[in-house]
Amino acid sequence: MPARTQPAANFAEIRALLSELPGPDLTAATAAAAREAQLTKPAGALGRLEELTAWLTTWQGRTPPRLDRPRICVFAGNHGVAGRGVSAYPAAVTAQMVKNFAAGGAAVNQLCKFIDADLRVYEMALDQPTKDFTRDPALSEEECARAMAYGMMAVEPGIDLLCLGEMGIANTTSAAALCLALFGGEAVDWTGPGTGVAGQALANKARVVAEGVAAHRNALADADALEVLRRLGGHELAAIAGAVLAARLARIPVVLDGFACTAAASVLWALDRKTLDHCLVGHVSAEPGHRRLLAKLGKAPLLDLGMRLGEASGAALAVSILKAALACHTGMATFAEAGVSGKGG
Amino acid sequence: MPARTQPAANFAEIRALLSELPGPDLTAATAAAAREAQLTKPAGALGRLEELTAWLTTWQGRTPPRLDRPRICVFAGNHGVAGRGVSAYPAAVTAQMVKNFAAGGAAVNQLCKFIDADLRVYEMALDQPTKDFTRDPALSEEECARAMAYGMMAVEPGIDLLCLGEMGIANTTSAAALCLALFGGEAVDWTGPGTGVAGQALANKARVVAEGVAAHRNALADADALEVLRRLGGHELAAIAGAVLAARLARIPVVLDGFACTAAASVLWALDRKTLDHCLVGHVSAEPGHRRLLAKLGKAPLLDLGMRLGEASGAALAVSILKAALACHTGMATFAEAGVSGKGG
Repeated sequence: MPARTQPAANFAEIRALLSELPGPDLTAATAAAAREAQLTKPAGALGRLEELTAWLTTWQGRTPPRLDRPRICVFAGNHGVAGRGVSAYPAAVTAQMVKNFAAGGAAVNQLCKFIDADLRVYEMALDQPTKDFTRDPALSEEECARAMAYGMMAVEPGIDLLCLGEMGIANTTSAAALCLALFGGEAVDWTGPGTGVAGQALANKARVVAEGVAAHRNALADADALEVLRRLGGHELAAIAGAVLAARLARIPVVLDGFACTAAASVLWALDRKTLDHCLVGHVSAEPGHRRLLAKLGKAPLLDLGMRLGEASGAALAVSILKAALACHTGMATFAEAGVSGKGG
Repeated sequence: MPARTQPAANFAEIRALLSELPGPDLTAATAAAAREAQLTKPAGALGRLEELTAWLTTWQGRTPPRLDRPRICVFAGNHGVAGRGVSAYPAAVTAQMVKNFAAGGAAVNQLCKFIDADLRVYEMALDQPTKDFTRDPALSEEECARAMAYGMMAVEPGIDLLCLGEMGIANTTSAAALCLALFGGEAVDWTGPGTGVAGQALANKARVVAEGVAAHRNALADADALEVLRRLGGHELAAIAGAVLAARLARIPVVLDGFACTAAASVLWALDRKTLDHCLVGHVSAEPGHRRLLAKLGKAPLLDLGMRLGEASGAALAVSILKAALACHTGMATFAEAGVSGKGG
């Protein structure tokens, strides 16, 4: 099935796509489960590795599933709210890190090389940050829809797994605002150190999040989650939401990364709870809002390694576990092939 | 440093080795930390990946550390106590699975191929199971010391990481007995489904564990942990303890696998709490005693994926995370190299 590459001009087109989402392929899942049961191990002894293979096969609609062409996408964007002193690093670091990605010097480069994945970095108008969401909507509807469409274009036929991540100074502030608007609670529940703010700076960051959400409360009273995304989100976060959607339409399973990435995807979940069924959360970030968000989404992360880097690093690392799971599923001998006695045999 | 290859004839020789254990190489650790601080990420943002590199460098005594020659050792042994109906599988499966390892059909074969590691399987007198420990000591001192020496021989110079695992029908029963004798509590605290026993069979397994430990209580009153190992352990468990010890002497970091493997290693911990400082626990098994045991040892497992297969599968999977961590540490650009502004810059 070809991926959608038409740019969406407005939210109406995005909403229309939500009604076209394919469901799980249970025929493929059943075939994979039948093979799993014959492999030389006690039933269930590979734990989550068995679930991963089942998930891949269910959402690729193919038995066995494949992991020959994983793609890692890192969307980079800048945020007007960075001017409010919410990050430990200056906004210039977003563009500097994009150069570092291009030169192969970042963590995600090493991880992509290790898992043999294709890394694509999408630089989204870094010289045109979003507006400061404490004063104005971060994006217009057209800007937001275009950013989502841009994310959708990252999904090409032939890819068998899509890992999503982001780079954007101040985007954990934006992510916290999205979560507060979508899931409620207090600003401090969703606000964490990000790149490393603490003490007074962290308290300031939480105030900025609260202020931003309060500024749009009336406008959001009867609005849906796409409106939340444009008012409090950012280019790279909208692109991630678009990529998640396009991947579902193209039957490509998705691995989400940390807090900012999952917050972006949760916009779709708020629109329709089935929209993230094809998504695995690669790891739980040390950014405290992430664990809270995963509880809301009912998602169990694969890894819990105290990482909080973004740039798809946790998602990329999770691919190594996925590849290992698939290697077991496809390569192991069956009880019959190996001449191993079955349970109670 | 050459590995010890002399077979230990008795426990006195083993005890003597414990006084020769090298400590951490803090010079190497300091050099690695200095590099880590310059890499293009917020300090600590790679979480446990940074700790893994520090651990490798500290115990290899080399900066940067290497992971070019990881070795996975699976020790296989049979247990007299298997005759007591404690496993869902017949004892013949131990030898059948050893054949499966040799033919490349088991889970650990696929994982070793994936991580590009050398797999060695050590078949330990499978036609001579230990004695049923509910009646007699499982092994004589000589048998136990020889099994430890056999495990020590798996450690060869040039290996840069050693992953340990086991195969042995009924060895979670033996492991539970070791834990009960070493750490106290009740038999049910340490007894789990193993290959998949439940209900009455699980209750029987716990009774066998309790009965076994009770049978040796008087003899163990003034004895050390090596005596616990010979009375309640098994060939493959003694070999694992020996391999852990030899690896330390040769400055080779060790990755432990699940419950049976960690129980074997905990014999050394009971002798001297520093003996497992060079060991990482690759994952926490779904076998419930493992989590309890790790709490006693103060070890945080790397992965938590509900695996309970043994055969070093969790340890092998952990190697992929270790390799990824090392790839980041050695391959990433520094702030200066990449022209990225530092914190607050």
